[in-house]
Amino acid sequence: MNHLIAQIIDKISAPDEAASAAAAEHLDQLTKPPGSLGKLENLAVKLAGITGNVHPDLSKRSVIVMAADHGVCEEGISAFPAEVTPQMVHNFLAGGAAVNVLARQAGAEVMCVDIGVNAELSHPELVMKKIRYGTANMAKGPAMSREEAEAAVLAGIDTVKGAVANGSRLFVTGEMGIGNTTASAAVMSVLTGKSPQECVGRGTGLNDERLQHKIAIVQKAIDVNQPNVNDPLDVLSKVGGLEIAGLTGVILAAAAHHCPVVIDGFISSAAALIAQRLAPETAHYMIASHASHEQGHEQLLGELGLAPMLHLDMRLGEGTGGVLALHLIDAICRVMSEMATFESAGVSTGEGAGPEATV
Amino acid sequence: MNHLIAQIIDKISAPDEAASAAAAEHLDQLTKPPGSLGKLENLAVKLAGITGNVHPDLSKRSVIVMAADHGVCEEGISAFPAEVTPQMVHNFLAGGAAVNVLARQAGAEVMCVDIGVNAELSHPELVMKKIRYGTANMAKGPAMSREEAEAAVLAGIDTVKGAVANGSRLFVTGEMGIGNTTASAAVMSVLTGKSPQECVGRGTGLNDERLQHKIAIVQKAIDVNQPNVNDPLDVLSKVGGLEIAGLTGVILAAAAHHCPVVIDGFISSAAALIAQRLAPETAHYMIASHASHEQGHEQLLGELGLAPMLHLDMRLGEGTGGVLALHLIDAICRVMSEMATFESAGVSTGEGAGPEATV
Repeated sequence: MNHLIAQIIDKISAPDEAASAAAAEHLDQLTKPPGSLGKLENLAVKLAGITGNVHPDLSKRSVIVMAADHGVCEEGISAFPAEVTPQMVHNFLAGGAAVNVLARQAGAEVMCVDIGVNAELSHPELVMKKIRYGTANMAKGPAMSREEAEAAVLAGIDTVKGAVANGSRLFVTGEMGIGNTTASAAVMSVLTGKSPQECVGRGTGLNDERLQHKIAIVQKAIDVNQPNVNDPLDVLSKVGGLEIAGLTGVILAAAAHHCPVVIDGFISSAAALIAQRLAPETAHYMIASHASHEQGHEQLLGELGLAPMLHLDMRLGEGTGGVLALHLIDAICRVMSEMATFESAGVSTGEGAGPEATV
Repeated sequence: MNHLIAQIIDKISAPDEAASAAAAEHLDQLTKPPGSLGKLENLAVKLAGITGNVHPDLSKRSVIVMAADHGVCEEGISAFPAEVTPQMVHNFLAGGAAVNVLARQAGAEVMCVDIGVNAELSHPELVMKKIRYGTANMAKGPAMSREEAEAAVLAGIDTVKGAVANGSRLFVTGEMGIGNTTASAAVMSVLTGKSPQECVGRGTGLNDERLQHKIAIVQKAIDVNQPNVNDPLDVLSKVGGLEIAGLTGVILAAAAHHCPVVIDGFISSAAALIAQRLAPETAHYMIASHASHEQGHEQLLGELGLAPMLHLDMRLGEGTGGVLALHLIDAICRVMSEMATFESAGVSTGEGAGPEATV
């Protein structure tokens, strides 16, 4: 493995158990039945473990939108033409896409990264990390070389390093790439051992016939390339994508910097699975956001030990579901800082409070 | 029925179909695959229908927290003592409870209403609408008289009228009342025909033995009172609660004023079911927020034709889940106002766009 990737992986440590315990203890003193804020309480404990701080400052946050094209589009696996990838990059840069709108609401910066768009792009705010002009058609051979996959992972790592240097302490994964649910389904199928049928969904909107074709193409890509399940970077390079590789790097680097990283939808979760297979501790730094409409997404989150908080049947990508989860992160951070305790408010505790809790 | 309640019910009309259609048309022009924002798109269509406006101004919003006590507490059905109800009212008024913290985040005003707390309360910000000092023990006779139940519904109606006069255009239901999951389960059981076993949950935290006792008490309350399933106010008075009645009024009045009303958890949903049985169109004005941890909640929402957006396993009440959903309402309102269209952004539409949509 590339030594820079290995270095980042070496830096990923277990969460801070003392901080997590302190957060759990504080939660039980607040004026509410113990555990009654459900997953938000788990989130507070997790955020403390990740940051080493019961009251972390996560006000500066970045959505990293990795954009790339997919050679497999020539097999007709998407409802949208490949030209939409660069068009949407311009839309992100102009602030008009859904992720821009939702990021403004959540006080997050959108960093748009060209990691492999099949077009000449240039804009002062575009992060230029192009590894190649889209992947090759994985139905005919590897999507990219191992070196290219590693370079894309490093590009993701570099992007997070730069954002951390600018003060960002919370990341959301996002992506744009016509054809990328196909690559993600292939990655999921290889790494989980589930059949392409179980992993492939309708993406941005395929009918039944086109869905069957997409399943066949994923099967073909796996048969042609024979990716090695025990070598995540082999899987990533043969049947993955450049934005998936970039997001793998984003997730690894967030974990190495003790920053929580919110995992968006199906494509982001495929990248998360690769990151977790490269460095299992990484999963402790991930926060699941929503259960997307794409078949296979919840199973993929289950593989990571994550449970989604939002059930909105979204299937847009870009980081849109992840950004919505920032409000829930902000909610529990405020609860930890602002809520009264039983003692301060003079409220009686119930049977459920304390060590004899029945819940 | 009380003529003032009948007047409000008369004012509840069907949603504005033309506004809903215009919202749906606008959504399909935005730079995203059609339908890809899932439930948020349904929400935009619903908000337009409720308000008659594709871009409603919902910036002024109120959480109405109805507080009351329950005579059935003497049967030992809660993990917390009844004294916690007035203690928590003081906590709401001091701004230290979870709902206060989350309402500040969402820019919502908290209106705390004493509709039946079994204590003398007074505070400049407490809305004084006390109908009686807690209900009677429904395991031995009716929780309250029909006149008291109607007066509590009217108190809820008046509270919303006042808030609307102050500019509020969006409501969240909230409540506080030790013992109120027991009353809500009884209401649900009678109105849906499901057994107490299916309707009773652990509330703020009961063990298995206490849960069985709670189920038996609900069955006893139904046997003793024989509420008439075809008369929602009879059910409300015999096995309901004063805060449930108040919230029924809140929901009816919100619908009558063409304001969306966000339904919080199990208790709020029991009130919503009574409102819907009194005036079926009311359901079109309701927005489900979260699926609470309390058994029976999702089934209750299903009776109303509502699907929750947040899955957080919360079981706190107060309006906490409802307030969290305000961020999702704000999200789709921003999307409707700020997102670029395919035409404005120069993005190609997919096969899924337009009348031949495959999704």
